[in-house]
Amino acid sequence: MNQTIVVSGMTCGHCVNSVTEELSKINGVSKVKVDLATGQVDIETNEKIGRIKLEEAIKEAGYELN
Amino acid sequence: MNQTIVVSGMTCGHCVNSVTEELSKINGVSKVKVDLATGQVDIETNEKIGRIKLEEAIKEAGYELN
Repeated sequence: MNQTIVVSGMTCGHCVNSVTEELSKINGVSKVKVDLATGQVDIETNEKIGRIKLEEAIKEAGYELN
Repeated sequence: MNQTIVVSGMTCGHCVNSVTEELSKINGVSKVKVDLATGQVDIETNEKIGRIKLEEAIKEAGYELN
């Protein structure tokens, strides 16, 4: 299934990599696609990932989940 | 001795790290201090580093030497 979130604070490709890396570590996440310009992040998952887990991953990367 | 350069295109702490890392690899460079807001980079060196070497390092990091 697909989930879409919006992450704020990313400014460059390094930021995109950090967010992608942290989200990819979550169990069930198979693909992460970040749009730097809009902050939109599309996540392909086996099962729906809860808001808290997503928030933790984004914070770990150093950004904010909208 | 000290050399000061200005690098454009850095937007976040990751960018600062990349520039710092690449400049630190140059022979003779002992310390690198980047100011993200202004792009100013202070380099402590044993000997004066030529423009071409500095340019190469900055490009390798993905940015532009002003």
